[in-house]
Amino acid sequence: MTKHLTLRHRLFLILRYASVKDRKAALAFSWLMTLMVLINVVVVVLESVPEIDRHHQQAFAWFDAASILFFSIEYLLRVWTAAENHRSGHASATRRRLHYMLGFHGLIDLIAILPFFLQSLLPGLDLRVLRVIRILRILKLSHYSTALEDLIASIYAERDSFISALYLLALTILIASCLMYYAEHRLQPAQFGTIPDAMWWAIVTITTVGYGDAVPVSVHGKFIGAVTALSGVFTVALLTGIVASAFATRVRRQEIEFTTEVEELVKDGH
Amino acid sequence: MTKHLTLRHRLFLILRYASVKDRKAALAFSWLMTLMVLINVVVVVLESVPEIDRHHQQAFAWFDAASILFFSIEYLLRVWTAAENHRSGHASATRRRLHYMLGFHGLIDLIAILPFFLQSLLPGLDLRVLRVIRILRILKLSHYSTALEDLIASIYAERDSFISALYLLALTILIASCLMYYAEHRLQPAQFGTIPDAMWWAIVTITTVGYGDAVPVSVHGKFIGAVTALSGVFTVALLTGIVASAFATRVRRQEIEFTTEVEELVKDGH
Amino acid sequence: MTKHLTLRHRLFLILRYASVKDRKAALAFSWLMTLMVLINVVVVVLESVPEIDRHHQQAFAWFDAASILFFSIEYLLRVWTAAENHRSGHASATRRRLHYMLGFHGLIDLIAILPFFLQSLLPGLDLRVLRVIRILRILKLSHYSTALEDLIASIYAERDSFISALYLLALTILIASCLMYYAEHRLQPAQFGTIPDAMWWAIVTITTVGYGDAVPVSVHGKFIGAVTALSGVFTVALLTGIVASAFATRVRRQEIEFTTEVEELVKDGH
Amino acid sequence: MTKHLTLRHRLFLILRYASVKDRKAALAFSWLMTLMVLINVVVVVLESVPEIDRHHQQAFAWFDAASILFFSIEYLLRVWTAAENHRSGHASATRRRLHYMLGFHGLIDLIAILPFFLQSLLPGLDLRVLRVIRILRILKLSHYSTALEDLIASIYAERDSFISALYLLALTILIASCLMYYAEHRLQPAQFGTIPDAMWWAIVTITTVGYGDAVPVSVHGKFIGAVTALSGVFTVALLTGIVASAFATRVRRQEIEFTTEVEELVKDGH
Repeated sequence: MTKHLTLRHRLFLILRYASVKDRKAALAFSWLMTLMVLINVVVVVLESVPEIDRHHQQAFAWFDAASILFFSIEYLLRVWTAAENHRSGHASATRRRLHYMLGFHGLIDLIAILPFFLQSLLPGLDLRVLRVIRILRILKLSHYSTALEDLIASIYAERDSFISALYLLALTILIASCLMYYAEHRLQPAQFGTIPDAMWWAIVTITTVGYGDAVPVSVHGKFIGAVTALSGVFTVALLTGIVASAFATRVRRQEIEFTTEVEELVKDGH
Repeated sequence: MTKHLTLRHRLFLILRYASVKDRKAALAFSWLMTLMVLINVVVVVLESVPEIDRHHQQAFAWFDAASILFFSIEYLLRVWTAAENHRSGHASATRRRLHYMLGFHGLIDLIAILPFFLQSLLPGLDLRVLRVIRILRILKLSHYSTALEDLIASIYAERDSFISALYLLALTILIASCLMYYAEHRLQPAQFGTIPDAMWWAIVTITTVGYGDAVPVSVHGKFIGAVTALSGVFTVALLTGIVASAFATRVRRQEIEFTTEVEELVKDGH
Repeated sequence: MTKHLTLRHRLFLILRYASVKDRKAALAFSWLMTLMVLINVVVVVLESVPEIDRHHQQAFAWFDAASILFFSIEYLLRVWTAAENHRSGHASATRRRLHYMLGFHGLIDLIAILPFFLQSLLPGLDLRVLRVIRILRILKLSHYSTALEDLIASIYAERDSFISALYLLALTILIASCLMYYAEHRLQPAQFGTIPDAMWWAIVTITTVGYGDAVPVSVHGKFIGAVTALSGVFTVALLTGIVASAFATRVRRQEIEFTTEVEELVKDGH
Repeated sequence: MTKHLTLRHRLFLILRYASVKDRKAALAFSWLMTLMVLINVVVVVLESVPEIDRHHQQAFAWFDAASILFFSIEYLLRVWTAAENHRSGHASATRRRLHYMLGFHGLIDLIAILPFFLQSLLPGLDLRVLRVIRILRILKLSHYSTALEDLIASIYAERDSFISALYLLALTILIASCLMYYAEHRLQPAQFGTIPDAMWWAIVTITTVGYGDAVPVSVHGKFIGAVTALSGVFTVALLTGIVASAFATRVRRQEIEFTTEVEELVKDGH
């Protein structure tokens, strides 16, 4: 890294929380961002409560305006500094900027400021849609999490087993709901009158949520229900086992890499 | 593999998704099959909803006829090409065909087209039985999943621990339901009047589904219920632990095999 | 093993399912025993249903008499042949017999035939107690399970972690129920009127059973409930993790032992 | 360890359950402490039941006075003997005492005797607050558990994955509750009228508790509910997998350390 960094490069590093020179600024920015996102989430949640919304409507409106301003400036700065991203593999600055804008993080950053533009351009738009968009600002926090990518990667490595477990899950839900439909649709037409109704029951049972809004009453139905509940435990165990194994493998690989490195260092040292 | 393959052999490979020469045809066929099966499942589910069934009865009937035709042709082709399966270990083509027809996949492929024959031969048959048979077409998708066989094999390797865990599960269910029956059968005869009734409660509790249709009300009953719920957590943990361990072992074995292979290659290279 | 075995020794081996000479007899006996125990369990369960009991009372009485006879003969034979158990480390035959009679399996075998003696000696005894004793016959099946002992041993090896997890569980239940008691005992005196009542709710929530018979209604209560439910997931994950780890360790140790053996064989062979 | 220990040092070792010389006294003290704490917990729980409290009020008051005395003496002795803790790294006895008093265990020991002082100094204080403080005496048992610290340390080692899983959990709860709020707030204003209400439902569903006090009724709501329940299973699997992996890693490290030690001993022996 050269000592003389342009302002654009310094900003680029700060925004990516990778700055060595401006460590404090990067840290301050990351904390400010986290705080802004969390307050935004709390505000969206609280706005849905009529009593709270009535008393703080003005404050909420001001905070929303401030957020739009903050996230808009951040977005523009990210687009501007994206030209510094030499790892993206694109030659021109415009292509690097497009690379950011059309990537996962770029789209999330865009969505975070969309409510403002939508409200301005489409004044008749349903306010509730804008609120859902504002709740998606929480995704901006995934900028920070490298462990999340590790997590997804380690599960992706076991995707074949995972898909098989999901296939078993779908199979169990389908067969359980069909059998329960035949066993109970005459006795409880409101709960098990159609196979989609019975599928709601099957999913609620297999995930072991068990609300109790749809419960078999006949002997046949209870027998099918008992087998379904036990299958649910087994299927959940399978999913957990796959995830746990994926994790353990990742940790072991990191250990082996570490051990190999140490061994090589020892050999070289001798 | 010889370059000149007969049509029968080429079809055999396409149907088994193992064709190298006709890669595209094999891929197209596998996608078509998956699509047909999934639409079949959706149709069976939707037919059970009276409003939907009334409006699309004609379309559903046409689709069902097309499915029967598709799966029948597929079945006949599979029987015909099964003569190419030299791995089955049978000398004559007829025996190889019987080997397929009486195997797991052969029977599923037969069941998938049974509704047509049953409807033709037994016109008075209950339509609901035919529907259940049609839902079993989803099992045709297991043709693709080699990971599913791995999954079953890895759990089979820990079958002793698994059976012991199931024995513990049965023991817990039995003792919990007997104790709960004595504690609550006078207070709540509708919920705990017989041991089978109490077993329904015990299974719903131990699997942590907890519908709430049968809940102890006495102090003794609640104490038994609390212990049962905690035992349920432990038993589920046991099952999950066994499955997770079975998985981890399989993954580690694959790794060791890989490492050994690499080591041998390195030795040979020296 | 000598070729000439006395009848007592042959019977001893058959009863322990360890006979090589009388393999078929041992297998037949183990199947007969499993069948007798399972039918006994089914009979006890069905007897509790008034309609079934009324119609089959005579058959049930005959079967119970036959069971008592079968299990009594088995018990006497086990006591007699216990003298052959040279591994018990006792010098005299009487001590070896006492070793069996006072051991886990001996006591279970005794309990299995107790109903007969109790009914003869104490005619005024509550029949329901006898039924509970008969259900315990299922424990006779643990004679077969060596994997069960492995299971218990592998969890015992992690007992420190296990006790810590149970301590955390008790802590969570206690604190959750105290807080919920203060939050809801005025609003719902029937559900949360005392701390033991709130503990019932806490256990049902933390084990994720969630019957729904006691549910917080106030904002404070729901907040406490949400934190409790999330703690429940964490505690269950902890227990599962400990069990899964105990299992994985056991499997790995068996693998290492196997590898070491193979390596030693290879070394000796060179 | 020198053979001549002052009384203060001997007491210090007894109180920390590390005494070799006074093994019996240390064991007796640890049992007495555990007993006192457990009876205290039982008393607090039972006091909340009006009938029991009415009959045993006098006995409870006496026991509470005895507990305060016991725990006060213990606290004073711990403060006095803390001067012997040379590992704390502080030069003066006063600093060592402050090190204990302001540490985790010191504060818990102080909280355990607080009710007495609070009652004397603030006679108008709400009795219920005092009771909550008394229930915290159970934390004194964590003095014993070294495995608990191991447990926490092993999970702390996987904190990045853990935080990512919690982030995913928060994300799922937030998005599920927002979607459910839009789907059901008109149909069921009492259950889903605000986003915080919907969050209660989301947490109860994702943790698979499933009380059934808030259940979607519309087709959209049930679809969102089904996806949420399945996400819940996945998130719980993730948490369990991380904890299980953290555990397995810890156990493996201990094994490797053990193996390395043995190998070094063998090498030295040669």
